[in-house]
Amino acid sequence: MARQKKIFLEESEMPKQWYNIAPDLPSPLNPPLGLDGKPISPEMLAPVFPMNLIEQEVSQERWIDIPEEIRQILFQWRPSPLIRAYELEEALGTPAKIYYKNESVSPAGSHKPNTAVPQAWYNKQFGIKKLTTETGAGQWGSALAFACAQIGGIECKVYMVRCSFDQKPFRKMLMNTYGAKCVSSPSMDTQSGRDILAQYPDTSGSLAIAISEAIEEAVSDTTGKTRYSLGSVLNHVMLHQTIIGLEAKKQLAKVGVKNPDIVIGCCGGGSNFAGIAFPFMYEKLHGANIQIIGAEPFSCPTLTKGSFVYDNGDVARMTPMMAMYSLGHNFVPAPIHAGGLRYHGMSPLVSASLHDGLMEAQAIHQSECFEAGLLFSKTEGIIPAPETTHAIAATIREAKKAKEEGKEKVILFNFSGHGLMDLVGYEKYMTGQLSDYEYPEHEIEANLAKLKGYPMPK
Amino acid sequence: MARQKKIFLEESEMPKQWYNIAPDLPSPLNPPLGLDGKPISPEMLAPVFPMNLIEQEVSQERWIDIPEEIRQILFQWRPSPLIRAYELEEALGTPAKIYYKNESVSPAGSHKPNTAVPQAWYNKQFGIKKLTTETGAGQWGSALAFACAQIGGIECKVYMVRCSFDQKPFRKMLMNTYGAKCVSSPSMDTQSGRDILAQYPDTSGSLAIAISEAIEEAVSDTTGKTRYSLGSVLNHVMLHQTIIGLEAKKQLAKVGVKNPDIVIGCCGGGSNFAGIAFPFMYEKLHGANIQIIGAEPFSCPTLTKGSFVYDNGDVARMTPMMAMYSLGHNFVPAPIHAGGLRYHGMSPLVSASLHDGLMEAQAIHQSECFEAGLLFSKTEGIIPAPETTHAIAATIREAKKAKEEGKEKVILFNFSGHGLMDLVGYEKYMTGQLSDYEYPEHEIEANLAKLKGYPMPK
Repeated sequence: MARQKKIFLEESEMPKQWYNIAPDLPSPLNPPLGLDGKPISPEMLAPVFPMNLIEQEVSQERWIDIPEEIRQILFQWRPSPLIRAYELEEALGTPAKIYYKNESVSPAGSHKPNTAVPQAWYNKQFGIKKLTTETGAGQWGSALAFACAQIGGIECKVYMVRCSFDQKPFRKMLMNTYGAKCVSSPSMDTQSGRDILAQYPDTSGSLAIAISEAIEEAVSDTTGKTRYSLGSVLNHVMLHQTIIGLEAKKQLAKVGVKNPDIVIGCCGGGSNFAGIAFPFMYEKLHGANIQIIGAEPFSCPTLTKGSFVYDNGDVARMTPMMAMYSLGHNFVPAPIHAGGLRYHGMSPLVSASLHDGLMEAQAIHQSECFEAGLLFSKTEGIIPAPETTHAIAATIREAKKAKEEGKEKVILFNFSGHGLMDLVGYEKYMTGQLSDYEYPEHEIEANLAKLKGYPMPK
Repeated sequence: MARQKKIFLEESEMPKQWYNIAPDLPSPLNPPLGLDGKPISPEMLAPVFPMNLIEQEVSQERWIDIPEEIRQILFQWRPSPLIRAYELEEALGTPAKIYYKNESVSPAGSHKPNTAVPQAWYNKQFGIKKLTTETGAGQWGSALAFACAQIGGIECKVYMVRCSFDQKPFRKMLMNTYGAKCVSSPSMDTQSGRDILAQYPDTSGSLAIAISEAIEEAVSDTTGKTRYSLGSVLNHVMLHQTIIGLEAKKQLAKVGVKNPDIVIGCCGGGSNFAGIAFPFMYEKLHGANIQIIGAEPFSCPTLTKGSFVYDNGDVARMTPMMAMYSLGHNFVPAPIHAGGLRYHGMSPLVSASLHDGLMEAQAIHQSECFEAGLLFSKTEGIIPAPETTHAIAATIREAKKAKEEGKEKVILFNFSGHGLMDLVGYEKYMTGQLSDYEYPEHEIEANLAKLKGYPMPK
């Protein structure tokens, strides 16, 4: 049989439902808690999110229909191709068969539009006229800007962390091109922004500040027509991303693979990992023998060195407390290039999966990741985003192990995004200017110690 | 029937031969001439190109086999999708059915790898160890760097015009990531570079200088293992690009379209236009009624305001004289953002097609093009390269005409590349900082007048 590089699905074969892992988790999910330690009710979230998305956030339905209008927009790039990494396999001399799901083919260049489009759609259905959000490296802001342009009739305002805003002018231009407004955070547009600028006029900004500004703008619109949108961490975000793994299952079946032996994704807030992994966790929960690996930065080791605790999603403690693996909400990760993985916490659903033993985690230095990214660029041709190189480095580790063991394992990983707009890290690696960072052990300990008064998850 | 957004081909359906239009042209092609006015023999090109590519350059075979090893590399992204522009059609309210061939899915983001891969492969077959080339905006240099990494065992050296080298650091990083060496031109690596730097230390460089440097390095390698590579203009480049139109024909057939009514591509050196158009010119030569339109910048109107003459490809007159539409080799185009369309001449094969009445041309201002690019970004989601926006603007003109006439025309255009690394033009357009440039009528006249002593094509 001729070798086949790309495995496509017809548009008619794209999944018609998302998979919600919540009802299938061995232990019931710990609810989000308010600052008073009591569970948050859906109504308490209503000023921030539209009720139809809140319903998804707390849903215990296993399968949730994807509305037809959302499917029509996803068809612009979905189903995404599943690609056999023949060239990488040859370079490694491994008997492993490596497949990757190429999420970089979306207009914004990553998996993020998979949830940006439904979030914009549900908000519009609910009568919302404007969405606010924050962005760090810029992937999420670009995706939401794209989605609002597609849905139409919904404004998009992005608060971009000042240092990224200044360093990455192309990201802002990309959002502008889609018709969104992108401002440097802290900004003069909100009270929290003005307060910080008055006190620290030279601050480089932070994700925590940008979140505060975006939420403030949403909840302070007296017409009630503005809401806030988040690109990772939350349950409904993980839900929307499961289309990745559901497609991959159908594609693997076309080449005669019932289940892969290993599934790998990189982990920041958890959304691209959940997207590829949850549908295979479903198989695992039904008896399949699948090793599922989350790959995270050595310097921001949430899953490998964090604790399973109740913690806030932001520094200012504006978000509810969530049961998750965390390094403590005051933890400031080292300035690695994979900006999308620099987060102290982890999606509660992904955290529960690790706590319940459905997955494992590996922490990897950025130099090993960039080395993997370079090998991938030269063999498979596509340049991976710095975040994605973590999944590739973990894949290469497993492919080498398969070689040592002489086993023909099937490895599937999520190629979450391309790196065309993030080439500085490669340049630094190639010119010997890239540093690795040690485990910030004492800092993690000190930050986790501050959570002593918090409730404990069950 | 459910509407289908993307039309794919299986890898097994990818064309196995390229189409060479040379033997089918109504008038025989005028041969390239040396400075003495006598036809250039293949042997005279041997220090610059490998003989197997020179054979393709002068071939009169209609169909030329694509070697299997090249096909395997093209499978990384080919067959490329044909996409129905439903969202654009709706925004225009046109009865026209608009399809575009999405060449932006290649690892380098444009159609250029379609010829970079075969060129690297044929050079390697011929025993060549190093390829030199020049690049302006950076698309071609990136493509050749990618191709050399894929082929392996062949070095790549790119001379990048200094002003682009300084303005677009990401393009250089991209080439470096693929393992190529990219230097600013003029450089200290060649005699012609050193001479120019000695005389004009502050020069911003030019494509003509970069070509001189790349050719000098190739021909001065005493081991005979270095050759030069060109990304457009030449016959064998047009040949390799015909895979675009050949695939599009098969894809249109899948949705019941025998031939489109209109085929559109943007024109700089001619390669992406030839790629989509030549297979349909074949149909036209066999009786089909197809309107074929080349879209070019208003300020660099080679096809609409140039003369069909013998002219050199570069300012320094290092290249042979070719029979082509030209604005005169001393013509310096206005600094529009579509850098890839800023060329005084046009592929001899495309020029002959126009001269023989197989196609027509339209010149369009860059503001109309960016307006078209913005509309496309917001409707179809993908941000077009500034070059590609010319094809989109021409498509929108024809779609509006179809609306006025109430005709359900099928329009096919080539989406030659994405604009993720060229967003500055959009930013300037949106902030009102973009200028249009008038027809440089007197300059064209003066430059063409200088060609008075040149031979005339038949």
